[in-house]
Amino acid sequence: MIDYRHLRVALLGAGAVGSQVAALLLQHGDELADRAGASLQLAGIAVRDVDAPRDTDLPQELFTTDAESLILGADIVIELIGGIEPARTYLLQAINSGADVVTANKALLATHGPEIFDAADQVGAQVYYEAAAAGAIPIIRPLRDSLAGDRVQRIMGIVNGTTNYILDRMDTEGAAFGDVLAQAQALGYAESDPTADVEGYDAAQKAAILASLAFHTAVPLEAVHREGITQVTAQMVEDARRAGYVIKLLAVCERLTGHGSPTGEAISVRVYPALVPRSHPLASVHGANNAVFVEAEAAGSLMFYGAGAGGVQTASAVLGDVVSAARRHIAGGVGVGESTRANLPVLEIGHAVTQYQITLEVDDRPGVLATIATTLSEGRVSIATVEQTVIADDGETGARARLVIGTHKAREQDLSDTVERLAVSDVAPHVVSVLRVEGD
Amino acid sequence: MIDYRHLRVALLGAGAVGSQVAALLLQHGDELADRAGASLQLAGIAVRDVDAPRDTDLPQELFTTDAESLILGADIVIELIGGIEPARTYLLQAINSGADVVTANKALLATHGPEIFDAADQVGAQVYYEAAAAGAIPIIRPLRDSLAGDRVQRIMGIVNGTTNYILDRMDTEGAAFGDVLAQAQALGYAESDPTADVEGYDAAQKAAILASLAFHTAVPLEAVHREGITQVTAQMVEDARRAGYVIKLLAVCERLTGHGSPTGEAISVRVYPALVPRSHPLASVHGANNAVFVEAEAAGSLMFYGAGAGGVQTASAVLGDVVSAARRHIAGGVGVGESTRANLPVLEIGHAVTQYQITLEVDDRPGVLATIATTLSEGRVSIATVEQTVIADDGETGARARLVIGTHKAREQDLSDTVERLAVSDVAPHVVSVLRVEGD
Repeated sequence: MIDYRHLRVALLGAGAVGSQVAALLLQHGDELADRAGASLQLAGIAVRDVDAPRDTDLPQELFTTDAESLILGADIVIELIGGIEPARTYLLQAINSGADVVTANKALLATHGPEIFDAADQVGAQVYYEAAAAGAIPIIRPLRDSLAGDRVQRIMGIVNGTTNYILDRMDTEGAAFGDVLAQAQALGYAESDPTADVEGYDAAQKAAILASLAFHTAVPLEAVHREGITQVTAQMVEDARRAGYVIKLLAVCERLTGHGSPTGEAISVRVYPALVPRSHPLASVHGANNAVFVEAEAAGSLMFYGAGAGGVQTASAVLGDVVSAARRHIAGGVGVGESTRANLPVLEIGHAVTQYQITLEVDDRPGVLATIATTLSEGRVSIATVEQTVIADDGETGARARLVIGTHKAREQDLSDTVERLAVSDVAPHVVSVLRVEGD
Repeated sequence: MIDYRHLRVALLGAGAVGSQVAALLLQHGDELADRAGASLQLAGIAVRDVDAPRDTDLPQELFTTDAESLILGADIVIELIGGIEPARTYLLQAINSGADVVTANKALLATHGPEIFDAADQVGAQVYYEAAAAGAIPIIRPLRDSLAGDRVQRIMGIVNGTTNYILDRMDTEGAAFGDVLAQAQALGYAESDPTADVEGYDAAQKAAILASLAFHTAVPLEAVHREGITQVTAQMVEDARRAGYVIKLLAVCERLTGHGSPTGEAISVRVYPALVPRSHPLASVHGANNAVFVEAEAAGSLMFYGAGAGGVQTASAVLGDVVSAARRHIAGGVGVGESTRANLPVLEIGHAVTQYQITLEVDDRPGVLATIATTLSEGRVSIATVEQTVIADDGETGARARLVIGTHKAREQDLSDTVERLAVSDVAPHVVSVLRVEGD
């Protein structure tokens, strides 16, 4: 055994991820020491209730409710409590006491990232958060370091496992959203309150983190446009399938040109269910898996794929960060802050430019398609494809037809204004759905 | 403009990658400075002939034949000469003069890696080589850092674009190896001397680098088993297709248990054309793209996908390393050495354990299959599937049959001994092909 320098590691939180991190730290301690060049001593685990039942068998004497004392004596602090407080206060205490910090807390970073990164810069500490964006998938280091010499043009990410699981089952089984959600809850794939996942809040937090890294710009969570998947029906999934698409909840982070910033550049960050061509690599991401597709000026297209969540998978990312933090402690030097100097404006959703698929039900009589085409054209929305099917006459409304209109690229504001005008036009239309098409 | 500290960057080599690196450094200088926190001044480009024609328009005054003087004045040295000498000497000079070094030189790292890493450790310098393993795909940092807290069990990589291009066209068009190679050469996808690619030398170098990182063990190039794709026929590709497989040149790096090391663990590193199930993510890697599939104990399955080569793509990886080197210079501290303390034995190919598909032509008479089955069983090779088809009698050899035998997992040594015994048995067999099956 080499006589390594000892580093004291404080763990805050012992939930699904925390208990796995503790177990792996204890189990693979010698191996991790060899890799880090420092022995990693788990100094304690701060919890609210030391007697609460745990997933894993961990030595009872490690548990403490005194997080602050634990933090004060630590070289590396791992924050796995989640949420804003007390996680934020503890992280800042850790940084100010000279520790490097590791966190998987996407909510905290998406809302208080700049405060935490600034605090670390002040004292030369480092913040590691590989587990905060796509679970076990290494995406933070690739964006922060490997692509630091390139210009990222676009990221399209499937970054929420629960919604991908639901949409994938709707796609393969033709099932309804509510039924699949109920099954996912029964199987533990979805929370009893699924709002954070199905309404896109979780994906929006990750989008803010990814966009900040990719575009060297602090992206506040409020600037991320967010729509969830609760409005996605079995019919929409079926229509998408017949048109050669699959519906995925995407986090899209995009660089746009021709805007008012000094360089003319700006960014758009948005989360919504979108139609993805079946031939796109993201279409093959099944079950609860995650994938991040990155388009960069020099590197071209890259994809990073793997498990997006799960206690032990996320623990892998956390422990990688712990080893990095230990190596940095041994190497010396100050931490390297986040690069946000590009400081690009984040545009509202109205400025986004993409393709759309508009599904309408209209009266089936002469002139209707002409009226619709004129309305779209006046709204600066150019039609790429139209598919019309007649709907059986129910005797009340007269003959009706279903129109599926694929557009060329259009500005979101133009598109939504136009759809609003269509909805009140005299062809008595019912707007069944408006979906963006990404990756075509 | 922020008044950044200036760092002097020396570039050695101005080939396809080097000229792109120089062009991007000059073009995006301000942006890179913002990201690095240091301005990166391209101090010069060392070449053999300053007047040789170049791909890109670069200021003539940057070129010099005096590499040694250029190196002496540099904070960061980028080595893109390739090959062993003078690259090795220059890199060691750069390290000893206190520079951090960036290299894309897989041949050098696969053969002299330990010497270079040791030299860097001695003086506290850092060696960056993201571009050495799979072009633009970030795989070095994920293995070195993100997965440092996990245990990699297996890597299966498509790490050579030329051979993937050839095999993909053979698969989609039914073409012969020689024809596709000739076309690839005409299109510039393959070198006029294609040996390094088609015989697997390039893939073996990358396998040595990936295995060293993944298993924290210095893996010498000589320990990598290597077979190329020149023996792959259109018939083999077609047979694979019908059986639900695609043939890919794979770099397989695997952790094995039950061996003679103190922990009972060892590793196997091998490059060969293998049958990959069509449903495996690696089967969808088309054209000259690369992908690295990683299985880790905690993280599960991950895949990294992108362009494996190309001047500008590789330049992206090089520039990411340059920014990392600059950040480290500003942050201070010593470099972090490669972790090789696991020091696992690298086993010969005979110890590898995988599945096989054996294709034989044999006399079509009673008892033949029984003889073959007995020979396999005595050789500790267990049959999973057999498919027999009769071959038309040509009047000379009598009735013949074609047997395609799929095996369960077997030791490579047992398999090759058994196939040798089969070849001299009295059923007059002709061994058409023996292919490993990976990823099943």
